[in-house]
Amino acid sequence: MPATANDPRTSRTRSWWGWGYADAHPDDAECAALGALLPGTLTRPLPIPRIADLPIGRPAATPPPALAHLVTTDPPTRAAHAMGKAYRDVIRALRGRSGRIPDLVAHPTSDQEVADLLEWAGEHDVAVIPFGGGTSVVGGVEYRGDAHRAVLSLDLTAMDRVLEIDATSRSARIQAGTLGPLLEDQLRPHGLTLRHFPQSFEFSTLGGWLATRAGGHYATVHTHIDDFVQSLRVVTPAGVGTSWRLPASGAGPSPDRLFLGSEGTLGVITEAWMRLRERPRHKASAAVALPDFHRALEAVRAIAQSDLAPANCRLLDPGEALLSGASQDGSSVLILGFESSTSPVDHRLAAALDIARAHGGHPEPPTTDRDAPADTAVGAWRSAFLRMPYLRDGLARMGAVVETFETAATWDRIPALIDAVRSEVATAALKATGHPATVNCRFTHVYPDGAAPYFTVAVAGRPGAEVEIWDEIKAAASDVLHRHRATITHHHAVGRDHRPGYDGQRPEPFALALRAAKNALDPHHVLNPGVLID
Amino acid sequence: MPATANDPRTSRTRSWWGWGYADAHPDDAECAALGALLPGTLTRPLPIPRIADLPIGRPAATPPPALAHLVTTDPPTRAAHAMGKAYRDVIRALRGRSGRIPDLVAHPTSDQEVADLLEWAGEHDVAVIPFGGGTSVVGGVEYRGDAHRAVLSLDLTAMDRVLEIDATSRSARIQAGTLGPLLEDQLRPHGLTLRHFPQSFEFSTLGGWLATRAGGHYATVHTHIDDFVQSLRVVTPAGVGTSWRLPASGAGPSPDRLFLGSEGTLGVITEAWMRLRERPRHKASAAVALPDFHRALEAVRAIAQSDLAPANCRLLDPGEALLSGASQDGSSVLILGFESSTSPVDHRLAAALDIARAHGGHPEPPTTDRDAPADTAVGAWRSAFLRMPYLRDGLARMGAVVETFETAATWDRIPALIDAVRSEVATAALKATGHPATVNCRFTHVYPDGAAPYFTVAVAGRPGAEVEIWDEIKAAASDVLHRHRATITHHHAVGRDHRPGYDGQRPEPFALALRAAKNALDPHHVLNPGVLID
Repeated sequence: MPATANDPRTSRTRSWWGWGYADAHPDDAECAALGALLPGTLTRPLPIPRIADLPIGRPAATPPPALAHLVTTDPPTRAAHAMGKAYRDVIRALRGRSGRIPDLVAHPTSDQEVADLLEWAGEHDVAVIPFGGGTSVVGGVEYRGDAHRAVLSLDLTAMDRVLEIDATSRSARIQAGTLGPLLEDQLRPHGLTLRHFPQSFEFSTLGGWLATRAGGHYATVHTHIDDFVQSLRVVTPAGVGTSWRLPASGAGPSPDRLFLGSEGTLGVITEAWMRLRERPRHKASAAVALPDFHRALEAVRAIAQSDLAPANCRLLDPGEALLSGASQDGSSVLILGFESSTSPVDHRLAAALDIARAHGGHPEPPTTDRDAPADTAVGAWRSAFLRMPYLRDGLARMGAVVETFETAATWDRIPALIDAVRSEVATAALKATGHPATVNCRFTHVYPDGAAPYFTVAVAGRPGAEVEIWDEIKAAASDVLHRHRATITHHHAVGRDHRPGYDGQRPEPFALALRAAKNALDPHHVLNPGVLID
Repeated sequence: MPATANDPRTSRTRSWWGWGYADAHPDDAECAALGALLPGTLTRPLPIPRIADLPIGRPAATPPPALAHLVTTDPPTRAAHAMGKAYRDVIRALRGRSGRIPDLVAHPTSDQEVADLLEWAGEHDVAVIPFGGGTSVVGGVEYRGDAHRAVLSLDLTAMDRVLEIDATSRSARIQAGTLGPLLEDQLRPHGLTLRHFPQSFEFSTLGGWLATRAGGHYATVHTHIDDFVQSLRVVTPAGVGTSWRLPASGAGPSPDRLFLGSEGTLGVITEAWMRLRERPRHKASAAVALPDFHRALEAVRAIAQSDLAPANCRLLDPGEALLSGASQDGSSVLILGFESSTSPVDHRLAAALDIARAHGGHPEPPTTDRDAPADTAVGAWRSAFLRMPYLRDGLARMGAVVETFETAATWDRIPALIDAVRSEVATAALKATGHPATVNCRFTHVYPDGAAPYFTVAVAGRPGAEVEIWDEIKAAASDVLHRHRATITHHHAVGRDHRPGYDGQRPEPFALALRAAKNALDPHHVLNPGVLID
């Protein structure tokens, strides 16, 4: 298996074509066992693709001598920076249909080097794709088209230090290229934590989280990374800027909020002061089986509209609960978790369980351990959660079409939205493949005024047509979201894949303002072309 | 007394030159009594100014017949729209130095009428000053200079309805011109509340709160109106846009966050879907006397860094506590309040009081009444809070220079910042007046990573030179904030008065982006010229 990126922290090898660590991928036998669960898939897994088979040509641009030491052109590095980690990326790699391989990969170590690279790229018509951990699932780190002379993947992971800690204000200045585990490693000795744990935590960076407005650990209140930002440092082709470290401000529109979610189109976030927490001392979690899904929705709404503020509040629909092992009897399962660094949380869990009971729920006994035993619903869900992307890739090797998408909508729309997504996406999948599809739903984050449903689709593909099938299903999904006025993404960004949905959702005056900002900050239009705006 | 604006809800008359209701102003005897508290002030109050003495000329522009019915040119209405309600505005009115009187005041009743007025203004070089309740304290609703042919004050208060309520998602679609009390009146029958209660609540509008990122009722967590916005509708010269109603989204930079805080420079917010709450059923509050101010700061930081989330957490320094009647013995006083619509809050108050005790605090007995008795510190503080702007105007009539300013900074900077502001502002005031100044401090909002100190300055002026004196003091205050990297405003906006501080604080790439957005949305540069950007 071609090894392309060693993880210096773990000494494990990261996969260039699939999720995570290469040694964690299901082997051929496991793939076959997974495929057997989905009628119509292949009988043998697709072979693991080889870098040697990729169409990697000579780089179409050469950096100047002063920048040459930052730039790599070896095929494994270029291959590992060609695409993100969506199902669409994995199946393209498996089918020998990779996206355009970047000409160059740069690993700058300072703001000045980032600025120098941007300047050179602007002068030489080289597209620049900012790259953190490369876990985009929306085509956010891939060049499409041929409007530029060459493509440079700007990998920030050499900028991976916590530079400063202010324990009094519980905050830290952190370089954008810091991967999740390395970030927490550097905070742990200080008793502090960012507690931003997306599913991609091991393989994604602070800068990526900020540029994409990633959703994190907390199911309620401060759900997005945005809320933990005290200050941003951004290098743009038009200059460098750092916002002041402030707990809050009312001085004009928030400068940080323009760059949060800008996905590398306006500038490169190189560092941020982030708000931290003390590590939690009190924890309690429990799972509740809820026989009726629509009553389960009401239970979750009631909890979201209380002031109990659970850290975890994941509702799994019956299919999702079955798949993760949290329930076998057709119930929905609600996973509740509370945590605090200052006060016991048992009474908050008890109050939430009372609400769930009032909606027909049957709680499991609460667990207070960090690692809930695997034979509890909480434990089963947690291990399935971390394993899921690997299983997706195993199913992809069996020719399955397996992907997730997520959204958010106000409570008044939620029941009809979920019903419509389930039915229309299943219909589209059946039409595209001739096979029955599974469409499951869970909630990742909830709010007093709405929820963020997260859907999983799985269906056997037609050999060689998996990309087109997924594109059809995704178009149907985007269409139903649009008709229900549900956002094209709650926390996975827009990238290139969500452009039609995003363009239809974004208010036109904001589109005008964003284009104008882009022209002002990136006058040569080299920053992540095709993402968010043209 | 010239009556210019009748409040239809209360049948009371609002003052055109001073704060609030004309009948709530201190009379001459009360003014004299107030002046006696501040050595060096006048012996008799300045007379109340008369509209007849204002230099109100013929309007320099005439709207087309189709818009004529929306436009008023009578002197009282024009006078009442000439300035905001800062000390600087009041003393200018008292000294016959009013800002430029607008030529026209329009009261549109629909988005289309707003759009038509903007179109006409753009074509005829008429500056448009969006106007809600007119309580700006930063020169936000006043035209300065003479770059435009005429000035139109765009008063939104005819758009004052709650248009739609979604009880399931606890949210409402509300017109931007709705004044605070009218807004709550329309929500009350539904058991819902926005609970945004700035000091200006009676006299300011939803649209004004949104355009200026107003600070509200909650001392912690969701402190600004920004966090309660689900969707905005904005009319710009380049078109109308409405963001989708969403509980959260990760689709690109937040469109709403660009218009929140844009202070009428990018467009006119005409309505918003706002997140509401059920009215609180559980309340508890208490005051704590803290003999040592620096230990009091530590107590507040500990509470802010807990997860107790008080709704009120106001620290009054000894001077402020004395002034409001909350303490007479030189102690600082911490006012704590908790509220919830779902759960009892007594244990949260008890936990916060434990923290305060550990820092040397002596709690008063807790009160659970909404209206704490006036003889408690909580009650004394609350009545002083609402009366304060009226007393400021009374002191202004005695020739005093009395004003507030506020900021926010991270905890590591807070002690040195407060000491520096007290000392440097008092020095500047003494230098400018020859009189000793009072400089008090309180906290209005607190965060895990910092606090928002709010300062009050009072000093006797030199007759006729009060404006220049205040400008000197304000420049000194802005300078010390800048050197300590404390924001020029936490919740009072930038307007025209804060421009130097804001320009020095705003990161340059964001300034470029904001200017570009302005050019795209307001190509004729008629929207609130001079605010935020040139």
